[in-house]
Amino acid sequence: MVGSVETVSDVVNGIVKEYMAENVEPLPEELNPKKIKVPLHLKNEDGADNGENSTLVSGKREIVLGRNVHTSCLEVTEPDADDEVTGDREACMASILARYRKSLIERTRHHLGYPYNLDFDYGALAQLQHFSINNLGDPFIESNYGVHSRQFEVGVLDWFARLWELERNEYWGYITNCGTEGNLHGILVGREVFPDGILYASKESHYSVFKAARMYRMDCVMVNTLVSGEIDCTDFRAKLLQNKDKPAIINVNIGTTVKGAVDDLDLVIKILEDTGFNHDRFYIHCDGALFGLMMPFVKRAPKVSFKKPIGSVSVSGHKFVGCPMPCGVQITRLDHINALSRNVEYLASRDATIMGSRNGHAPIFLWYTLNRKGYRGFQKEVQKCLRNAHYLKDCLRSEGISAMLNELSSTVVFERPQDEEFVRRWQLACQGNIAHAVVMPNITIEKLDDFVKELTAKRSTWFKDGKAQAPCIADEIGAENCACARHN
Amino acid sequence: MVGSVETVSDVVNGIVKEYMAENVEPLPEELNPKKIKVPLHLKNEDGADNGENSTLVSGKREIVLGRNVHTSCLEVTEPDADDEVTGDREACMASILARYRKSLIERTRHHLGYPYNLDFDYGALAQLQHFSINNLGDPFIESNYGVHSRQFEVGVLDWFARLWELERNEYWGYITNCGTEGNLHGILVGREVFPDGILYASKESHYSVFKAARMYRMDCVMVNTLVSGEIDCTDFRAKLLQNKDKPAIINVNIGTTVKGAVDDLDLVIKILEDTGFNHDRFYIHCDGALFGLMMPFVKRAPKVSFKKPIGSVSVSGHKFVGCPMPCGVQITRLDHINALSRNVEYLASRDATIMGSRNGHAPIFLWYTLNRKGYRGFQKEVQKCLRNAHYLKDCLRSEGISAMLNELSSTVVFERPQDEEFVRRWQLACQGNIAHAVVMPNITIEKLDDFVKELTAKRSTWFKDGKAQAPCIADEIGAENCACARHN
Repeated sequence: MVGSVETVSDVVNGIVKEYMAENVEPLPEELNPKKIKVPLHLKNEDGADNGENSTLVSGKREIVLGRNVHTSCLEVTEPDADDEVTGDREACMASILARYRKSLIERTRHHLGYPYNLDFDYGALAQLQHFSINNLGDPFIESNYGVHSRQFEVGVLDWFARLWELERNEYWGYITNCGTEGNLHGILVGREVFPDGILYASKESHYSVFKAARMYRMDCVMVNTLVSGEIDCTDFRAKLLQNKDKPAIINVNIGTTVKGAVDDLDLVIKILEDTGFNHDRFYIHCDGALFGLMMPFVKRAPKVSFKKPIGSVSVSGHKFVGCPMPCGVQITRLDHINALSRNVEYLASRDATIMGSRNGHAPIFLWYTLNRKGYRGFQKEVQKCLRNAHYLKDCLRSEGISAMLNELSSTVVFERPQDEEFVRRWQLACQGNIAHAVVMPNITIEKLDDFVKELTAKRSTWFKDGKAQAPCIADEIGAENCACARHN
Repeated sequence: MVGSVETVSDVVNGIVKEYMAENVEPLPEELNPKKIKVPLHLKNEDGADNGENSTLVSGKREIVLGRNVHTSCLEVTEPDADDEVTGDREACMASILARYRKSLIERTRHHLGYPYNLDFDYGALAQLQHFSINNLGDPFIESNYGVHSRQFEVGVLDWFARLWELERNEYWGYITNCGTEGNLHGILVGREVFPDGILYASKESHYSVFKAARMYRMDCVMVNTLVSGEIDCTDFRAKLLQNKDKPAIINVNIGTTVKGAVDDLDLVIKILEDTGFNHDRFYIHCDGALFGLMMPFVKRAPKVSFKKPIGSVSVSGHKFVGCPMPCGVQITRLDHINALSRNVEYLASRDATIMGSRNGHAPIFLWYTLNRKGYRGFQKEVQKCLRNAHYLKDCLRSEGISAMLNELSSTVVFERPQDEEFVRRWQLACQGNIAHAVVMPNITIEKLDDFVKELTAKRSTWFKDGKAQAPCIADEIGAENCACARHN
């Protein structure tokens, strides 16, 4: 197909001829390829944004509301009548996939900004890709659909319930599509427990928390944060006192998205108690997207535990564990879940999940990794990540670059590189004047050295001849971490 | 591990010894395996509900609220200290996976009840399972995360927008995690367009529609259905007239879940207009989970098209297309989407999706199949499914079994088998006195013959000697389709 000079009408004629030969009904008129606009042949536009050419793109990107900009698109085109004979189409698709795979290798190699462990090997599970595995509805109640992986899912859930200290017969949970679904679920459970509750979340909470408030039509109070990114408990106390008449639903961050800051769960609970919120008047959801799985292995870290008065904990599966697609784990108390349950006979299953149909492969990926690594394996990896994160922060500081690393975190926050091309090359996540790198198990010392070397070299061109000065980011990361001219 | 008589304390001792040898920090106390309850060795309980033993299970299952019944669970256990040396753990896991794969083959073979096309071959895509592909946020706006598949996603979206007649520069959409996410999104867009709108949905709508109403705190009016399962437009008109002061958000079923009934979109629109709802006072979401992709290829079927005043259409990707995991496509009008959009700098992406982090493999599966089959390929498959569905209905009727098949549908509704074991063996979806089989591309005439033969044989034992009589299901499927003693 690619490289062919066949026109659309050739294709159409081919189709029409074949129809006539087979005596099949004609395609409905609206699908007549003659009427279909722009049925281009397959274009190979995968270079610009994900391939070897990505470093060629530079300049600030614009975020445009209300436009669906087709920056790159691999079009779906109608097969030629003789495609099955010539094999051209298969060949063309194979070449697109091979090129795409190459770009994925390159992009996976140069990646620092997102909290995804890109180092995994699920070769042993490739045999399962031939099956349409779907865990419909509740993990603990069979549906009639037999091609599922509930037995793996429940094993994984048990492991996490144990990690967060909730008895096997007292928890409920499921494997979600991502961290966002965990937050959506936890906050929904909170709202069902306290229909007139107010949602409190620090302003550095993940945006899905505020999305939930909007979706669920909940009153939401945004709480200030400290420079570290932690919730400002003084502000939290003040805001609770202003709304004493309504129950409180609180999102506690076990690692914020940008700075990896861990909210002080014990202090949050103490303030709730001090301000007169009894345990039957608040619900705490812990958003542990990344750190929910790291914290248990960090010495002296505050503990996330259902022995404390919390309602739910969520964690992502594609972050510290590593998984081909996003997924997550949501654990809550069994007695909360009835508030949300509905009995749906169609599936022979009550459905307290958000999604209903659920990816049955994700539980198997998680089960596989948890079984191979165990608590001990995760502990080793967490310790390595924290060590390497310290190494990165120290390297940056010794090069005179502003940088911050929270005590319990492997997220190194630093001065935003001036060059969008560099940001994109290393896939850094940025916000205002700061960027971050998240040191995950696949990030080696060698990769960090490469990164710092490259950043230092680039930086010398951005700030040479006093053309510009490194910005002050003391407001974002604290004066003691800022290396600008004033704070140096 | 399996078959070993090692005790938990042996395992613990092994771990402790290795710690001392490696001089690593000890595990936090709460993860000390001594304190972990029931750390059984891997149990192989995968037979009962998904394997070769499934036919041994019988009797009515109970749906229990408020319990997380561990009917089957493959536990995650802590590795032994010497697992890497002996290879025991790898061997044990491999054997579990091999057995699981065998059960999946069997369960895939005996499947009639869910609208999933289980016939696909994505071997060419196995190479991509090594990558953590995530389409963060909006498909049309790049995020900084480079390991994505937006170019495939946009190609697939273009194809669907074309199918439903919305110009390339006028639509917005994304690939969802399942049909439920499409409904959640479509109804949310409707609510954002009309914040005080009332949601109308026929009582045979998918349960996710009512879940959405509850999640979003929307007023919801349930509309009656005809025997066919279609929305009862007389009742719809009456209910609109009772609520003329508020905008209407309507869920239109393009194929209901149980009976495959297609609501009459044109009539719904006409009634809205007749009752004084101008186009700026209603929003229609079309739930086309299965039939959204079949209808365009059915002669004389009413057309789903954005040339009509509809707001969004969703379809599942794992149903007619076939996909290893649930996914779906959601298409809406670009000018609606700003109501929902938020600019989230963290991702360098506005986020009008529900999930934020999105499975990047699903778009590639869809792209691959659409490119191979094309409109023409789907047309052939749709025609085959409709023919085979007629064949099944005719076989059932000629055996004296009550059965109904809606004109535009491949869902055959029939008398619920009396034996739960049989229901489970064929994975039939049931509701009250009826069951259904959905004839998908992987269902052959041979399989249907086997099914009817087996059903007939079983049935003769259920109803022999006048012990019991086949129930009357005229209320569910119409007197003309009922073969009970009275209606025969």
